[in-house]
Parts: sequence; C-alpha cells; structure tokens
Amino acid sequence: MLASQPLPPSSMAFNAIGGSAIRDLLKVTEQPGVLSLAGGLPATEFIPTSAIAAATQLVMTDDAALQYTASRGAATCLRAVAAFIGGSPDEVLITHGSQQALSMLAHAFVDPGDVVIVDDPVYVGARQAFQAARARIVALPITATGTNTAHLAELLESGLRPRIVHTVSNFHNPSGVTADPDTRQALADLAQQYGFWIIDDDPYGCLRFSADDGRRRIAPDPIPGDRAIRLDSASKILAPALRVGWLQGPTGVIDVVERLKQSADLCGSTFSQLVVAQLLSDTQWLDEHIRTLCVEYGARAAELVKSLHRHLGDGVELTVPSGGMFCWARLPGIDSSALLDAALIEGVAFVPGAAFAVDADFSDHLRLSFATLPPDLLGDAIRRLAIALDRTH
Amino acid sequence: MLASQPLPPSSMAFNAIGGSAIRDLLKVTEQPGVLSLAGGLPATEFIPTSAIAAATQLVMTDDAALQYTASRGAATCLRAVAAFIGGSPDEVLITHGSQQALSMLAHAFVDPGDVVIVDDPVYVGARQAFQAARARIVALPITATGTNTAHLAELLESGLRPRIVHTVSNFHNPSGVTADPDTRQALADLAQQYGFWIIDDDPYGCLRFSADDGRRRIAPDPIPGDRAIRLDSASKILAPALRVGWLQGPTGVIDVVERLKQSADLCGSTFSQLVVAQLLSDTQWLDEHIRTLCVEYGARAAELVKSLHRHLGDGVELTVPSGGMFCWARLPGIDSSALLDAALIEGVAFVPGAAFAVDADFSDHLRLSFATLPPDLLGDAIRRLAIALDRTH
Repeated sequence: MLASQPLPPSSMAFNAIGGSAIRDLLKVTEQPGVLSLAGGLPATEFIPTSAIAAATQLVMTDDAALQYTASRGAATCLRAVAAFIGGSPDEVLITHGSQQALSMLAHAFVDPGDVVIVDDPVYVGARQAFQAARARIVALPITATGTNTAHLAELLESGLRPRIVHTVSNFHNPSGVTADPDTRQALADLAQQYGFWIIDDDPYGCLRFSADDGRRRIAPDPIPGDRAIRLDSASKILAPALRVGWLQGPTGVIDVVERLKQSADLCGSTFSQLVVAQLLSDTQWLDEHIRTLCVEYGARAAELVKSLHRHLGDGVELTVPSGGMFCWARLPGIDSSALLDAALIEGVAFVPGAAFAVDADFSDHLRLSFATLPPDLLGDAIRRLAIALDRTH
Repeated sequence: MLASQPLPPSSMAFNAIGGSAIRDLLKVTEQPGVLSLAGGLPATEFIPTSAIAAATQLVMTDDAALQYTASRGAATCLRAVAAFIGGSPDEVLITHGSQQALSMLAHAFVDPGDVVIVDDPVYVGARQAFQAARARIVALPITATGTNTAHLAELLESGLRPRIVHTVSNFHNPSGVTADPDTRQALADLAQQYGFWIIDDDPYGCLRFSADDGRRRIAPDPIPGDRAIRLDSASKILAPALRVGWLQGPTGVIDVVERLKQSADLCGSTFSQLVVAQLLSDTQWLDEHIRTLCVEYGARAAELVKSLHRHLGDGVELTVPSGGMFCWARLPGIDSSALLDAALIEGVAFVPGAAFAVDADFSDHLRLSFATLPPDLLGDAIRRLAIALDRTH
C-alpha cells in the first residue's frame, strides 16, 4: 500500500551518503566485540552520573520542575548558561541539543534554493538540517586555520549571496582544525558586509587539551559581531541524554527561534534544564570536571596518534588533535569505505571520509573518535585497523 | 541593525492571533494572584513526582541512560509504549512531546501550498505546525460527533485533495467533543479512497471520567485503517517535563519520520524515555494512577460546570465535559476577548474563543481548563469571571 504512494516531499532532501549511512554504521558498531572509533559519543565513564543524579533529586523537590516551561527555556537555566558563557540571558535560548538549533535556524533563514555555505568536509548533522530546508549547499575546502575566507570573499564578490555560513570554529568535526583570530574577524567582516548569518557550531570549545588553568570558556576570541550565532551544548561536557543545548545570538534571532521552538516542540524539559543549571552554577565542581575531561581526552588523543604512528608508520597522515573528540587521518591511496568492510571483520569501526565530503574527494580519509574508548582499547583498535589494512592490500 | 534586515521567511507563516497571543496570555496568567483557566497544564499535585523520582534513580544506575539513544527511541521505551497502547513496537516512534510529532509530520507530508484540513475550532499547536510548513489550511466546522465527515466528503468530491486531515478524536481541544464510531469509520474510508493521512492527536484519551474499570486505553475504537497516525503523550498522564510523546502509524511513515527526527534533534533523552518505560510497565500502579486522574479531573469538571451555572445562570451555554481538560463555553452576545481584559483585572484568565477560530466566529466562546486548579479555586475563578462579566455589561 505504502509503496504506491508518493514519497513525502521533504524526504527527498536527505542525502543517502550522509545521515543514513552513518546511522546504519552506528548500528553496526553497536555489535558486541566491535571497538568503535565511529561515533561522537563522550566516554560514558566521564559522564558525571552521580552529580547528575544528585542534581535531579534536588531539582525534583520543586513541583514546577515537572511542568511545562517557557519555549525559550526555564529562566534559571537561561541565567546559568549566560553566566557560563559570559553573556546576557537575553541572548540565549535553550534547545533540545545543538541539532535542534541547526534545524530551527535552517527553517528560520532558508527558503528552498537559498544558498548555505559549509566547510568541506562538513559536519553531517548540519548538512542534514540545511538539506531538510532544501538549501543549495555550497562548500569551501577547509583550511588549517578554519573556514576558507579568501575563497568565500571571492564567491561573495562574484555575486553569491548565502543566507548562512556554517562552521565549527573550535576542533572542527571532522577535520579537527580551529579557526584562528584572523579567520574569525574576516568571517565577521564579510557577514556584516554581505548580510549573511554565521552559525558557529561549538560543542567542543571547552575540550582544549592545553587548558590547565580551569577556565571553562576557552575560545579566546569567539566570532565577533552581531551576525554570529553560537551553538553550544551540555552533551559533550555533561551528558547527551540531558538534551540541553543553547543558542547565543542577537535578540532578534532569539525572538524568531522562540516562535519556531513553540511550533517545533512547545518547550524543552524543565527538569533537564534545571539539572544543567544546577551543574553549570557549581563552578568549583565544573572547573574540576572540565579540567579532568581535557586531561583524559588529551591522553586518549595522544594514545591514538601514537598507535597510528606505531602500527601504520609512514602510511598515515594526520594532524595531532589539540582538542575536541576527533582525529582526521589520511591513508594515501586507500579507499577508506572499502577499508571499513575489512575493519568491521577485524572488529574495529570508524567513519569513512566520504561521509563528510561535499565536493572534495575524502575517499582516503577516516574520522577516528578518540573520546569513547579508554587508551588500552584505542591501541587495540588501531592494531586491528592495521591488520585490516594489510588484508586489503 | 536587525530591523533593516528581511524577516526570516518562515516567520511569516505564523499567525499573530494564534500562538503568540496564547503565549503572551500564558505569560500574563503567570502573574501572582491570577487564577488561570487558560493553560492546558495538568494539575501539578497529580504529577506522580515521587514515582518519577524513584524511577529516575533506578534508571540512572544504568550508565547507558545518560548517553545518546536511537532516533526512533530507546528500544525499552518503544516496547513499553507498544504494550501500553496494544500495538507493535515497529509501529511506534518516540517524539519530544506530541507537538514534535505534528511538526515532523507537517514537514514530511506538506509542501508549501498543500491543503491540510483541520477542525474549526482548531488546536492551536496543530495549526502552528501546519502553517510553519506553509500549508493551505481548510477548516471544517466541528460537529457534536467529531470531524464533519459529510462536509469533508463534499469537498473531496468537488476535487479538494488534502495531504492531511487533523483532528483530536477524544475530548477535542478546545471543543470537548469526541468522535463517534461512524465518524471514525467515515474518516478512515475517505482517507483510503482519496489518499490523505489522518493525524489523530490523542493526548486526552486516557482521561475519560466514566472509566472506572482501570482500563488505560479507553478509546473503544481508534480510527481504523492504514492511513491513520495516532499521537499520544506522557505529558497529561505522567508529566509534561518528561517531554515524551509517541507516534503510532504504518512502518513506512515511521521510517520517514525517523529520518526527520535525526535532522530535527538527533534523538530524545534516553533517561526520560527509560523513566516513562518504567512507569508505563508498572501496570498496577499505572491503572490506579490513571483511575485517580479520571476521578479527580471528573470532579473538577463537575465543579466548573456547577459554578458556571450558579454564577452565570442562563447566560452560559456549554456541553458537560466527559473527559479531557477543557470546557468550551459560550456567552451569547459577549465578546470574550474584551471580557478577558476585565477578567484579568478581577484575577482570572481563560483563552478567548477567537484564538481557536479558523473561519467560524467563536468570539463569544471561552476555553476553560478545569484541570489545573483545585475545586475550591475553580469556584472562586468563576465567581471572578461573573464579576468581570457584570462590569463589561
């Protein structure tokens, strides 16, 4: 019956290579015995379960914690997030994870056919959100210092008029690069001149491995100006299941997104938001917790890089991660999608570079997450990857 | 700066009379001293806080409870919901409240300009979701036995081809009516013949006041056939802040919505879903809890009706509610929007009928929620309303 019906129109906006391939892959990697470097999951052992459980019990003593809350977010959470990021509560809106912010901003700013510029390689979730709004995606090959603003300036001068430029300014997913101050300023200037919005997707900003000073907000220079919208999340520093993200931007944008939020899901979870507020406000605990995450993830990144060099030698090219959760590696001459088949047989998973490609050829790249597995298993995973690589030669 | 920029396109899809007026109104009603009959909030004192807190503590002993989950929902929750509604887990998808289901279905099935048929008066959240997808809304004046299927058949025969017909089949919001078996069957037959989807928004189905037999699924006859998509939620029977709703429909629809869910917000909250699964699975506790809700809300409905007759006498027309949370009352000759201004001065709030009107004139109607306030305050609220009514004469 269903097969004969026309497909829902929006479903055609989905890219078969991107989201569904990763979703299918993540299902495969859930099989017992597979060491997964594929997902962007924080380490379960670093999720502060007991702190969250204690905050939950405290929060639930307030009857209002289980009722509906405002579409923009519970006032207590708006204040706590504003204090955490050093901004005003008027510039904050709480989302159901950062992905919801991407989805709502896409619907707010993109009419079908409008141009959205992304980095190449791109964060798959962002591309999905823009494709669902039927944007025309234009990609800029990313540079070692972030979004390719020189190329962007040329496109703008030649008449291209994007509604949105999306990037991940800190520890880019998947490429790992961080935008330098000049790139940030150039982006802000171009946005001002040409009237587009910058969406800076920044869930990893706190996870800077050299941050040993206990400062939580580590980006020394967020993208300046009143055309930048910054997305952030509790998923990577507290827990994904809280589903609390936030959007920081001009009040006019907040107002528009607030209306979209009401239409999208009425409001978020009061008690999740109050739990996040409680934990963000306990700055002494939070500083120590984030410092621990940076030390531990830094150690895992180092272990991954060491294992890659040990087991793959000169066959691998990579940039040593300075933060975040991912290592973007290249195996010149290797088709990483074909390698994945062999790798799964050996019991290790990663995401092939092709999943993140827009125009460029990343078929010899791999995104390797070092966050999820402990150091000893990271070593085992790369040993298995090396065996798989030998078998495909 | 912002004022000179073009408005985001989708924002124009919002109806100024509907969502934003209700949102503004709900802000007003949060003022201390105002007795609110306006919101669709369950009574805070009937939210099973201690059961939820206990389930939360239990659930959090599982490390995976704070990680990401599948876009369709945690398997445990899918099974628990399927058992609760008497269906198969394959036909279920967990949403972030029912509003998210409306929003995703609108995006799945509606291209700009496509026709969506709703009841008049309409549930405001549904209209917002369809307007956000830029549907052409066509309204059918609701009947005492639900959606006006005779009128719908005429429109279909004359060539109208809707993508969706939306209704609230049990204890309709705001009109309070329940679809009879003939209406349900007629809707299913027309959907089969003309190829549209029926969205049956059913958050109140459990709240049938005559349900004293402990059966939870009270609709004796859900809308039949493979063109019906049923929405339901934990918000009215457990707690709104859990933000757990569910969609029950054909597997082809589930697959499409699963992809949209990934783009909309990746996934829901694992631990919220596991808490709901835990509570839905404790059938002995749940039967008793829902029986209590039905008895208490039934008593409140009776108190509201008694107070309306006592204080407003022959000036009010209403149907005695048999379930749900709302009484749809009419004060012939009175402009209820003007009455609201006077009512707020007296310290009582309701939603004027105009907020729910599509084509019809409901300017003399009021939606009165009897769920939120205890019986004695319901009496006080209606006494204040009567004073406000006197003052406006």
